[in-house]
Amino acid sequence: MPGFIKKIDHIAVVVDDISQALTFWQDTLGMQLSHMEDVPSEGSLVAFLPTGESEVELVQPTGQDNGVARFLKKHGPGMHHICFEVYDIQKTMAHLKEKQVRLINSEPIIGTGGKKIAFIHPESSYGVLVELYELSGKEGEIRLDRARELAERVLSEGQTMANAAMDFLRNLREELSKDRRN
Amino acid sequence: MPGFIKKIDHIAVVVDDISQALTFWQDTLGMQLSHMEDVPSEGSLVAFLPTGESEVELVQPTGQDNGVARFLKKHGPGMHHICFEVYDIQKTMAHLKEKQVRLINSEPIIGTGGKKIAFIHPESSYGVLVELYELSGKEGEIRLDRARELAERVLSEGQTMANAAMDFLRNLREELSKDRRN
Repeated sequence: MPGFIKKIDHIAVVVDDISQALTFWQDTLGMQLSHMEDVPSEGSLVAFLPTGESEVELVQPTGQDNGVARFLKKHGPGMHHICFEVYDIQKTMAHLKEKQVRLINSEPIIGTGGKKIAFIHPESSYGVLVELYELSGKEGEIRLDRARELAERVLSEGQTMANAAMDFLRNLREELSKDRRN
Repeated sequence: MPGFIKKIDHIAVVVDDISQALTFWQDTLGMQLSHMEDVPSEGSLVAFLPTGESEVELVQPTGQDNGVARFLKKHGPGMHHICFEVYDIQKTMAHLKEKQVRLINSEPIIGTGGKKIAFIHPESSYGVLVELYELSGKEGEIRLDRARELAERVLSEGQTMANAAMDFLRNLREELSKDRRN
């Protein structure tokens, strides 16, 4: 069985007023707002609240004629979809088609920063609108650059780093032994 | 602003038939089923599908007279709630009470393994049923033991480990340089 899913990327929550909803998510619950994006092509305003390796995304419709606006009218505010990051969206979609899964997008659509996106219809997922998301090559290149820099830096600081790590572990062992004695 | 939230612990999805829903989540999407739990006290059967640092939990009501059964009857299958792991549930709840947030549980309830749980009413969260979850002291002790063992092991294997790490990084640098040339 191939594993297509890497992690939960985000949970999208439809709201009728982002500023008001942020009084709960940001002010009361203490989540950090990383940024907001106006997405005219999707007729929505989105607020991004990262937590751990995932995000909560608040989505407020700005137009009348789109899925999010219709969802809000029909159901009121609430959770809208779950988005998973996948390793390879083309392979995943080919597999889903083979399994006769109903896809909302027959080919990936391209989002901001070149990421590839496709939705699975809730009819095939037993009630949940599922988004699949693959990072763009550009984002991969950025991460590769970071790994390269890290490898260079650690190698050049090799012995210093190793000593610091050993000191850290010695202290940790002492702390943990103290902790056990108490 | 204090940060109460650590990460998304799980997304709960209400289904009318777990076996049927697993044909999508497990067989088609390729997620791993870690285990299933019959929870008679909550009148539900739960399937756990970990991904990254979070989980998707499929919940099938086994009784008639509980929140999940009523949700299914009213809305049909779909996303039910989002659960966040918090650092300190008592502090979080005290803060929420101060902010006049409507809590479903005024004090944490104790779940399996001693974890502490409380729900926020969707009325206060602009439409989303939110669960808060704190790991039990027992789970903390297990993790402390693991850290202690790791520190002991790394210290005893100090030089070998350091050499292995340097080799790994040298190989990584070579691979990354090759990658850049291609």
